[in-house]
Amino acid sequence: MATLKVPHPVPSAVEDAETLRKAFQGWGTDEKTVIGVLAHRDAAQRLQIRLAYEELYQENLIKRLESEIHGDFEKAMYRWIFDPIERQAILANIAARDGDYRVVVELSCVNSTSELLAVKQAYHARYKHSLEEDVASQTTGDIRKLLVALVGTYRYDGAEINPRLAESEAKILHEAIAEKAYNHEEIIRILSTRSKAQLNATFNRYKDDFGISITKDLTSESSDDFVAALRVAIRCISSPQKYFEKLLRGAIDNGNEDVITRVLVTRAEKDLAEIKDIYEKRTNASLDEAIRKKTSGDYEKFLLALLGN
Amino acid sequence: MATLKVPHPVPSAVEDAETLRKAFQGWGTDEKTVIGVLAHRDAAQRLQIRLAYEELYQENLIKRLESEIHGDFEKAMYRWIFDPIERQAILANIAARDGDYRVVVELSCVNSTSELLAVKQAYHARYKHSLEEDVASQTTGDIRKLLVALVGTYRYDGAEINPRLAESEAKILHEAIAEKAYNHEEIIRILSTRSKAQLNATFNRYKDDFGISITKDLTSESSDDFVAALRVAIRCISSPQKYFEKLLRGAIDNGNEDVITRVLVTRAEKDLAEIKDIYEKRTNASLDEAIRKKTSGDYEKFLLALLGN
Repeated sequence: MATLKVPHPVPSAVEDAETLRKAFQGWGTDEKTVIGVLAHRDAAQRLQIRLAYEELYQENLIKRLESEIHGDFEKAMYRWIFDPIERQAILANIAARDGDYRVVVELSCVNSTSELLAVKQAYHARYKHSLEEDVASQTTGDIRKLLVALVGTYRYDGAEINPRLAESEAKILHEAIAEKAYNHEEIIRILSTRSKAQLNATFNRYKDDFGISITKDLTSESSDDFVAALRVAIRCISSPQKYFEKLLRGAIDNGNEDVITRVLVTRAEKDLAEIKDIYEKRTNASLDEAIRKKTSGDYEKFLLALLGN
Repeated sequence: MATLKVPHPVPSAVEDAETLRKAFQGWGTDEKTVIGVLAHRDAAQRLQIRLAYEELYQENLIKRLESEIHGDFEKAMYRWIFDPIERQAILANIAARDGDYRVVVELSCVNSTSELLAVKQAYHARYKHSLEEDVASQTTGDIRKLLVALVGTYRYDGAEINPRLAESEAKILHEAIAEKAYNHEEIIRILSTRSKAQLNATFNRYKDDFGISITKDLTSESSDDFVAALRVAIRCISSPQKYFEKLLRGAIDNGNEDVITRVLVTRAEKDLAEIKDIYEKRTNASLDEAIRKKTSGDYEKFLLALLGN
């Protein structure tokens, strides 16, 4: 469930554009109003506001925001204002450039087949080449094989599973992990081609047959990026909310604003309520309070608004 | 240009369905009429005929055809009657099962990005799993890496090229080939991720800088399947008509009906006129004549009809 709160009735896109324009004018920017409007509109509404603003004032709203607001708040708003598909294309581009395997794995494994395809289409339109090219040319070795395979696949999205295949592929995975042959091409093949339903059946079978979850089996010793990327892929496929909760918890502990922003912005319209719930059960503390402690100013207000405050 | 000839005006789908029904009734099948109708309708018209037939007679036209006609003619008709996307999904499934790398490479490299995607979607709908899975689980080693990468990619489809990239990647390809490191992961990366326009710039640059075409450079000695698959990929990307002409010429020389059928059926609505033209220039002989010599009966009549006779 989303945490995003949209007022009822919601102002028209033209009214919102006018409100924003007023907030930009005069001495300084009225950030409270900017947050009040944009942090409480869904993706379709934000797009309409961008279009209305451009139409009314012959000015790009995103460019104007860049000159009006600053720092972590600007960065978070620049992520938020796009619709989820365009935003992910932008995040993917930055991640591919920086060799940030985690974001690439996330978007490959959390999105549905049609969402991932839409991200790749948006990537083509925006950057005039493919995400696969950027991922492939910025990485090397085993991690490249894994990332290119995960990004490139067009998984079957149905619910049908084959229990015998789950059994045999759980065994293949277990053997590769037991031999510490993490880069075994069978691991990449299975993770990158099977449907999510099939993979979850395989992971369950792994736990039943070998008495340990595949992610725990992988965690043990290695601090290798490749093994870490494997774990991210498995966790994003088997339980994205738990994955994001743990990621967010670590980012709050370490004060990593980039990751805090990414999780809140990308999940606020999706499943941030579940993520918050898991966080609060696990830590016995309020997520809102934790964000309040670690952030400040308009950035803090914006994140709290996305959390439904 | 297509060789397919559709009469003007064309009968309605209901009229065609009635004509076919009559051809099936009584003693034996009137194959001439079956060919007269189905070999002279485009993909959209064939689909309408299938729907009209099912509606009128509560019977599946394809199943009925299977019981009415036989041998190579039946096989060719069974390929032809589907629309190109569904047909390719079926061909891909058979090829993946049989480990026929050539068909998998063809469909990955000849289709546009959106056509390949449509084939993969049709594959999901028809087989309830992905083409990537079947290709990956039926192959091993280097050829698996190449095939899965080619099938899995979602290439950028635009015309923009980067000349410096073409130069540097021509050099990478040349070095890998000179070292006979055919399975070098850079070759797979470049062939499977770059846009076709970019790849053609790279192949041209290869010829200019190294005085030999990349396919010739690859041909020399190896009879390895992997190298053969690389050549097919490069030729399908750089010049599909020349590729299909050579394939067809070989199949005519060796009497390989499967391949003759595949080329004629899959290209009749696309570019069979160019393929025929290349064939006739190269052999100084008529393609129709060559087909006449190598085939017989209704199969022969059907192929000649697809060739525009």
